[in-house]
Amino acid sequence: MKDRILDCIGSPADLKVLDDSELEILADEIRREIVASASKTGGHVASSLGAVEIILAVHSLINSPTDRFVFDVGHQAYAHKLITGRLDRFDTLRTFGGVSGFTRPAESEHDVHASGHASDSLSIALGLAKAREIKGTDEKIVALIGDAGLAGGMAFEALNTIGQMQLPMVIILNDNEMSISKNVGALVKHLGALRSSEAYRDVRDSVQYRFESAGKLASSLVGFGRNMKDSLKQFVLPQETMMYEQLGILCTPPVDGHNISELRDILATALEADGPVLMHVVTRKGAGYAPAEADPVRFHGIAAFDIATGADAKKPATAPSYTSVFGKALLEEGCRDKRVVAITAAMRGGTGVEPFFREFPERSIDVGIAEENAVGMAAGLSRGGLKPVVAIYSTFLQRAIDQLIIDNALIETDVVFAIDRAGLVGADGATHHGVFDLVYTRMVPNMRIIAPSDEAELADALHTALHLGGPVAVRYPRGNAQGVDVPDEPRILPFGKGGIRREGDDVALLAWGDMVQTALESADILADRGVQARVVDMRWAKPIDIDAVAHAAETKLVVTLEDGAIAGGVGEEVLHVLSQQGSTTPTLLLGIEDRFVPHGSPADLFRSIGLDAASVAERVLERL
Amino acid sequence: MKDRILDCIGSPADLKVLDDSELEILADEIRREIVASASKTGGHVASSLGAVEIILAVHSLINSPTDRFVFDVGHQAYAHKLITGRLDRFDTLRTFGGVSGFTRPAESEHDVHASGHASDSLSIALGLAKAREIKGTDEKIVALIGDAGLAGGMAFEALNTIGQMQLPMVIILNDNEMSISKNVGALVKHLGALRSSEAYRDVRDSVQYRFESAGKLASSLVGFGRNMKDSLKQFVLPQETMMYEQLGILCTPPVDGHNISELRDILATALEADGPVLMHVVTRKGAGYAPAEADPVRFHGIAAFDIATGADAKKPATAPSYTSVFGKALLEEGCRDKRVVAITAAMRGGTGVEPFFREFPERSIDVGIAEENAVGMAAGLSRGGLKPVVAIYSTFLQRAIDQLIIDNALIETDVVFAIDRAGLVGADGATHHGVFDLVYTRMVPNMRIIAPSDEAELADALHTALHLGGPVAVRYPRGNAQGVDVPDEPRILPFGKGGIRREGDDVALLAWGDMVQTALESADILADRGVQARVVDMRWAKPIDIDAVAHAAETKLVVTLEDGAIAGGVGEEVLHVLSQQGSTTPTLLLGIEDRFVPHGSPADLFRSIGLDAASVAERVLERL
Repeated sequence: MKDRILDCIGSPADLKVLDDSELEILADEIRREIVASASKTGGHVASSLGAVEIILAVHSLINSPTDRFVFDVGHQAYAHKLITGRLDRFDTLRTFGGVSGFTRPAESEHDVHASGHASDSLSIALGLAKAREIKGTDEKIVALIGDAGLAGGMAFEALNTIGQMQLPMVIILNDNEMSISKNVGALVKHLGALRSSEAYRDVRDSVQYRFESAGKLASSLVGFGRNMKDSLKQFVLPQETMMYEQLGILCTPPVDGHNISELRDILATALEADGPVLMHVVTRKGAGYAPAEADPVRFHGIAAFDIATGADAKKPATAPSYTSVFGKALLEEGCRDKRVVAITAAMRGGTGVEPFFREFPERSIDVGIAEENAVGMAAGLSRGGLKPVVAIYSTFLQRAIDQLIIDNALIETDVVFAIDRAGLVGADGATHHGVFDLVYTRMVPNMRIIAPSDEAELADALHTALHLGGPVAVRYPRGNAQGVDVPDEPRILPFGKGGIRREGDDVALLAWGDMVQTALESADILADRGVQARVVDMRWAKPIDIDAVAHAAETKLVVTLEDGAIAGGVGEEVLHVLSQQGSTTPTLLLGIEDRFVPHGSPADLFRSIGLDAASVAERVLERL
Repeated sequence: MKDRILDCIGSPADLKVLDDSELEILADEIRREIVASASKTGGHVASSLGAVEIILAVHSLINSPTDRFVFDVGHQAYAHKLITGRLDRFDTLRTFGGVSGFTRPAESEHDVHASGHASDSLSIALGLAKAREIKGTDEKIVALIGDAGLAGGMAFEALNTIGQMQLPMVIILNDNEMSISKNVGALVKHLGALRSSEAYRDVRDSVQYRFESAGKLASSLVGFGRNMKDSLKQFVLPQETMMYEQLGILCTPPVDGHNISELRDILATALEADGPVLMHVVTRKGAGYAPAEADPVRFHGIAAFDIATGADAKKPATAPSYTSVFGKALLEEGCRDKRVVAITAAMRGGTGVEPFFREFPERSIDVGIAEENAVGMAAGLSRGGLKPVVAIYSTFLQRAIDQLIIDNALIETDVVFAIDRAGLVGADGATHHGVFDLVYTRMVPNMRIIAPSDEAELADALHTALHLGGPVAVRYPRGNAQGVDVPDEPRILPFGKGGIRREGDDVALLAWGDMVQTALESADILADRGVQARVVDMRWAKPIDIDAVAHAAETKLVVTLEDGAIAGGVGEEVLHVLSQQGSTTPTLLLGIEDRFVPHGSPADLFRSIGLDAASVAERVLERL
């Protein structure tokens, strides 16, 4: 027996028979389902709760998958997942083999692209709209993007072309007045000014919007905008009202994003427009679940929690995270040297720079979702005599590789790239793993790269990077560190030198970062099988410790272990060094094979790709 | 005896004693010098002629290098070079060991950063301004950016933060109403509307700009703006006038960019402002040299030419360029399959897509300087059922690596990346060489990469890529192809298979792209020295031809030849394959060592890095 409307929704087509009040009930059921499920699996609760009514309104008016609904970032798409055939598997959210926390075309025909990196949805939607024009078809195209995502350069580039091409599409601006943490940038201030309804009304009045005919109240927030249907086409595009309209994109007045009826009214009209329309929707993150409304930052991406209180279900970890160790080390470096400046791109909490930001606000910069500017600005700060530290996730630094090369490495700026979330991140999956940074930093001349193997080495690595000068990457994984003591005074790490962590002459395990721990565990297993493995904490990915490689070549097998792509990775660099040294010792490169790794717990993921200690030991024995 | 003012300018400080009329004479002398020099060396003539007065005005009012003058792209900076101590070497422009065609800090303390990639200057300037605030100093900061560069996402990201931070700096918008070819995008349309002086005056009047006091006519174009000095601080920032002011950046009315006196008046005022000012300057590309004014597209980046007529000095090449062969092949594919769509990012002429654009305008997209959007939009077009071909330079695809990974490779879109200017490009130097693409495409799962060795193979490669589906990169160099016949009907290249071009059992030369030709020439030299070299056109960089590698391992030495970075390059992949095959054959990886390669003729450059045929032969003999 099906108690809920939700249980009767097999696909978005089933929404067509529901009226507004039934959709409201469904929204409530979806909220409960999201909270119940995410309380066990963790997830992006606040964003997904904020977007429930928007998603229902869109799917009630379009015909997915013929019509296309594109999600920016995609972590707000849980309601979409629940009504597109994934309800019965929703309790597997973000677990290994389960439902992804983002849209994935491989998962459903209703998922248009692999979301996860902000600001790309408008380009995707524009490509779909242009394809529609070329094919001569007439499907509807809707993109949902947050106010934070709109600040990304890629979104602006797309808006520029959308304004030029004038192809029909609806861009829903989900304006929740915050991104992951505090929103920044002049664009936000600009939106803020618009949010002040009086100012906004004045602006709109002054350019004489003509809303004619009668109908339901379209926007209670602004107090005008009755039945836009006929009037949309009569708009004389005002050049001066706001940025987007200056780019040629028609904008609606703000709409209450939790009022299904309003949303559907305005959206129905916007879908009929003969050019691009930006629908300005105001929502609350965490809407409908008190703990999330009260602390949307904590509920942005949260682990399992208690439904009644919202408190964390898990016990605190015994070891601190690499992130928090980095944050503390950065703060201390900031005390030691007042030239140290922290830069982040909407990852203030995620990268652990918060303590530095609090202590040294004048030396702290959050540019919002704008990695290119973060890395370019770091170059300028360095040229101005300072020592910027760019705190960024590995996967998002992919957005600024050119700036790393041209604006920094080429002129050898004194910039430290603190690359968090390197390696496999776990539940966020393929779009968030940091598996390419060893490649895209290693290929760049003048770069130095350190991959610390524990939290003490991380503090040392940061200190060393600032001491060295030049562009230096320090990369470390998500999650708990090893639990070792971090000395009060960091050391300068010997340049380009690793260190032996375990002696052994049968095979040499050359490992970087967290893989040193895996190598040590593998060595234990190998010892039980009669094989003595040397374990080397290689520490530097560039320059590589060629003496350690030469020494390794004296064993029967040189094994490299990295938590990044093998193709172009540091294991291949070892092969090159061995080639130059004239070695004929057999080799085995272990790392991420040439495929995308899905989501799941790190333990599950490492096991699935043969990079856990047991698999590594087996593979070594096999190769011997 | 010094006949010219120019000969007396040893540094920008020497401009201080000149009055406006003398600066005008100097501008004329600089123009003659630019034309005379570039007529021999080639260069970016049109842009540099357009920016002469702006550069003189800036340097006459600031104190470089204490004050900082940041150039976007930097190919308009020739006047800057001539007055910052590089006059006597200016005839070496863009030649090996000579003056760079862009700003380079290593070349002069007056060059703030390594310019070459558009849209980065504002981030650099912002970083400098923030550093100034932190240090508590008071130097002036000026950035010069073109209207095309402003459309880049990175520039928008910077503007967003500039508007937020409100740090004083002057952004000079060099509005010449065109980029490399025809400018595109809604932003340009928006600027166009502003350019219409009546509309602009109406807007400005309506927000009641108060220009008080007397003084010289500040802007004849607009007819108002007398002595802004006092009035700037009295501005009430109008929220609705234009985009940049909405972001919190004060904008000047348009200024005649060839009127030194006007420029200096307005700039002097702007430099005193206590926040960011965008100075809107209107210039003509090629100003002052009739042939360049008449054909600024040709004179954007031109080879040696005849001063009197502007005609090309060089005889036409005997072989067609890879670019033109690609353009023709793309046109033919467009005729064969109406799903083929061409996308470029302000490289319409440079990538050879012009014939396709003329024949199929409805399937042609130029997004302007917006690589992220180009690659993201391609993903959308593919999801819409089409077959987009992104025609882009290797160095500029660096701006969209994340979009290649996340938006395309992860979901296996059917997108062809036609990567032009792969390898060493010559005179444009370090910022323009395409030495990383083999690395940053190879690291990405699901990618296929073809590096054709001649123009027939290029046509085959494009055909094969479109036939294969999935994301495929086809990469080829700048300059003339090999002069072989291109059959009317392209072939499907066997997947992941190379071909032997010359038999030999002593050593195996495995080469990609143009390096096949180098390998063949080296083999001739080696044969004269008694060494028989097999030459393999490897063709595919991914997947690699493992049989060819195994076969190569039967010789005494496996040599790889690529015109890209060795670190992470395809040579290392060969080492990995050999490792997996258990080979102990010695190896030698030849390619670009771990440093940035400067500018010069390709022949000079290849010789300097030991990658010409003679050096390759020597290095092979040495290793044997």
